[in-house]
Amino acid sequence: MANSLPLIWVDGRESRRISALDRGLHYGDGVFTTLAVRGGAPLLLDRHLARLARDCGRLGIPCPAPELLRGEAARLSRGQDRAVLKITITRGEGGRGYRAPDECRPTRLLALHPWPEFPGDPARDGIAARVCHLRLGRNPALAGIKHLNRLEQVLARSEWDDPKIREGVLLDCDGAVVEGVMSNLFWVKEDRLFTPCLNECGVAGVMRALVLELAGHHGLFAVEVREPVSTLFEADEAFFTNSVIGLWPARSLDGRAFAPGPVSRRVQGWLDDAWCGERP
Amino acid sequence: MANSLPLIWVDGRESRRISALDRGLHYGDGVFTTLAVRGGAPLLLDRHLARLARDCGRLGIPCPAPELLRGEAARLSRGQDRAVLKITITRGEGGRGYRAPDECRPTRLLALHPWPEFPGDPARDGIAARVCHLRLGRNPALAGIKHLNRLEQVLARSEWDDPKIREGVLLDCDGAVVEGVMSNLFWVKEDRLFTPCLNECGVAGVMRALVLELAGHHGLFAVEVREPVSTLFEADEAFFTNSVIGLWPARSLDGRAFAPGPVSRRVQGWLDDAWCGERP
Repeated sequence: MANSLPLIWVDGRESRRISALDRGLHYGDGVFTTLAVRGGAPLLLDRHLARLARDCGRLGIPCPAPELLRGEAARLSRGQDRAVLKITITRGEGGRGYRAPDECRPTRLLALHPWPEFPGDPARDGIAARVCHLRLGRNPALAGIKHLNRLEQVLARSEWDDPKIREGVLLDCDGAVVEGVMSNLFWVKEDRLFTPCLNECGVAGVMRALVLELAGHHGLFAVEVREPVSTLFEADEAFFTNSVIGLWPARSLDGRAFAPGPVSRRVQGWLDDAWCGERP
Repeated sequence: MANSLPLIWVDGRESRRISALDRGLHYGDGVFTTLAVRGGAPLLLDRHLARLARDCGRLGIPCPAPELLRGEAARLSRGQDRAVLKITITRGEGGRGYRAPDECRPTRLLALHPWPEFPGDPARDGIAARVCHLRLGRNPALAGIKHLNRLEQVLARSEWDDPKIREGVLLDCDGAVVEGVMSNLFWVKEDRLFTPCLNECGVAGVMRALVLELAGHHGLFAVEVREPVSTLFEADEAFFTNSVIGLWPARSLDGRAFAPGPVSRRVQGWLDDAWCGERP
């Protein structure tokens, strides 16, 4: 299809602009989610819409109806073989001041971006990663939400330029492992799967939830833990997940070598099945 | 003057819209400052521009030249007897992903808002305040910056509806006092002035810096400390500052009564002089 991307719909209409009074701009007062589009369909859309609604609820933003978002996402993705769809919901326009208006009209922004071409075959060969210097603040009121306050990620991502390093690992201000800059993080020790619990900081990704769910279905022991970074260095395998990359095994972390192992491959197979089961 | 407010300039032109790809919206990737306009002039403008530049520097955003911002702020304020000017600088447009573009063209947004009418005379009579439940995350990389990631303030401000309560006090996740939701916080004990240090969280306001500077000029002992909220309850006086309200003494905090005392009045006098010295 010949549409040039990004293609953006603001409140249901193609537009490149939003209100300069939007609280999404002034306070990051909103949430978002990012999906893979394959063969004209946004993958795992219902899970993403459920997460958007849950995150809106945490912030007290009335989320647009799922049917409305589902319809717009489907129309926007039609004819796109491979793309990335980002759905953003903000609290809408507001005056000056942190207090939300009594009646708010949320803004919805659906943006279809070109599929990012990742050099090599990171899902097969694994990636090099590093531990970031920036430490995430701990805030239970915001933990888990994919909200628009993402300066920590922007600063963490600015720590390196080397294109061979594909992801950074974020710790919290007490040194516990939390997540990747743009992904969630898992590791394997003695055939058991571990991922950081996200009750004090971090983003609870749709892919992360799916991995934990599939592990349950397949009888793989999986648990959320709070662990120092040394635990990660002592793991047998480690991998990163998000809804665009799927699963990327770690090949190295700050010089410590990993081999993409059997558990990573097993989980990768489950995710491929879950994704393909969604293709029309 | 008959202009209806808000009046907004985006990159030097009157406009109500910004790009839907602006990183200010997607990541809160930017900074802002808010000034009082009196008699056609933005007050303490040079201090606000210096702070904007400093905050941009912390985030690696190339701040527009001060002469440009000064000229636009002056033109926008001309003829306005009383108004509020908010200057926002974002990293500008970006693609998808946290990584900042190699060459960024910052967006500048100057918005002139109507002067807020505060019921009563809070500067004279003092205000009722409360301690918020929400705890601020600690993050030295972002501490002090007036950046666009303000969900903590939005959530804290949503904790109360009672219009008689004019400000909330924020503690960090370890219980230390940090600031007001929209202001900085000072207290007085035995004729000494205290304010929380902001090296782990909080916004370092222009008015806060001015108060500390004026205290130095006038030989009033003033120091930044890290203290639990109990210290605030045991203080002789307490007050809040920002560039729009000036100084509001606390009259009560969660039921503990304060009287606007002699040190608060002294500082108020200095600020009035500093402001009036700026009026054309």
